[in-house]
Amino acid sequence: MPMPYPNERKIPPQVIKRLPRYYRHLGELLACGIYRTSSGALAERMGLTASQIRQDLNCFGGFGQQGYGYNVKYLYSQIAELLGVNDKFRAIILGVGGLGRALAESDLFFGRGIRLLGFFDPDDAVTGRSVAGYAVYPAKELSSFLVREPVDIAVLTADAGEAMPLAGLLDEAGVRGIWNVSGVELSGLQKAHVVNMALADSLLTLSYRIKNHENGSADAGTGDAT
Amino acid sequence: MPMPYPNERKIPPQVIKRLPRYYRHLGELLACGIYRTSSGALAERMGLTASQIRQDLNCFGGFGQQGYGYNVKYLYSQIAELLGVNDKFRAIILGVGGLGRALAESDLFFGRGIRLLGFFDPDDAVTGRSVAGYAVYPAKELSSFLVREPVDIAVLTADAGEAMPLAGLLDEAGVRGIWNVSGVELSGLQKAHVVNMALADSLLTLSYRIKNHENGSADAGTGDAT
Repeated sequence: MPMPYPNERKIPPQVIKRLPRYYRHLGELLACGIYRTSSGALAERMGLTASQIRQDLNCFGGFGQQGYGYNVKYLYSQIAELLGVNDKFRAIILGVGGLGRALAESDLFFGRGIRLLGFFDPDDAVTGRSVAGYAVYPAKELSSFLVREPVDIAVLTADAGEAMPLAGLLDEAGVRGIWNVSGVELSGLQKAHVVNMALADSLLTLSYRIKNHENGSADAGTGDAT
Repeated sequence: MPMPYPNERKIPPQVIKRLPRYYRHLGELLACGIYRTSSGALAERMGLTASQIRQDLNCFGGFGQQGYGYNVKYLYSQIAELLGVNDKFRAIILGVGGLGRALAESDLFFGRGIRLLGFFDPDDAVTGRSVAGYAVYPAKELSSFLVREPVDIAVLTADAGEAMPLAGLLDEAGVRGIWNVSGVELSGLQKAHVVNMALADSLLTLSYRIKNHENGSADAGTGDAT
């Protein structure tokens, strides 16, 4: 009997939340040449219980076989598909400051099937140059660029005052998702998906734990907006 | 009747999770010269309900007064105290790559009462130099440094292979908290608090939402370990 395509099944939000972690851990196993694993081994690695792993993996067709366990490559490819890694998403970075530059220099994008098209920055001193191998375009050309070039993901590293107007522009131009590392919360967007990467909140969560000797399971540093 | 000191009361984990956001929003209000607010105004700003705001703020002594509302400065100072902002925590950054540099150049640390002592890096080409105004020490001197200097927070930006051994060393040396931006999950630590800032997981959460047109409320990019 053919398995339903993963996207056709309803995956509970708490499992979706763990998908990037599964993807990362399975990728690490593959990189070490490990092609089979068990719910017990994955559980130990990820700090979850074996029964939770089995429940989660059942959601996306990763049924383990008695005496064999899980096929790591199959699971990895199923989760990659779910996460859009095969969709060749196209991204731009708004702001060519230290953080934007560091992100562009990392393997964050190409390691996840995302193609970086370049930077946009309002500062004339940097536009026209190449940073980390990517072109830096003038911010004033962003609107016309977005008409010509479909952009799936905009990485927003802009300063507080610029973040919201820029996000509005991206939303109206049909950019599908905003990865918001600006530290400013975005509101009132019509269509764009937003995921916040709130560095300051994450750091303060650690500060809180140190001060209060707290070992709880609060999530760190991510507000969430849509 | 004197209010109990906030730390003496038990604050529910879901409220603790929101503390850094409250701190950020109240700070933004103060920066705009707004010294009074209402649960309704805060709710709109933060995308919560007014009754949730009232419940949350009651936990740390921020009782609003009928006809006055909340005293922003008082709330801000209470939350700052809870978050350890007044504790003058001392931090080091492990790894002088783009990300470490960008974090040091930002106002993340001094804006939250955290004093940055410098970088550590294994690369002889960068040690002895100053980066973003901070000294870069050789990684091999880390242990002896930690004997001399109490360090509350270590920012771990090291590569995959180095992250876990470094975390073990920090833990044994009594560093109280690790802000883990290395992308590697840390395990087996005895005492150190760990907050993960998983950039890749956050980006993949956005990718997932775009692909699946999902507007859910999954948190993004933060695993959590203790």
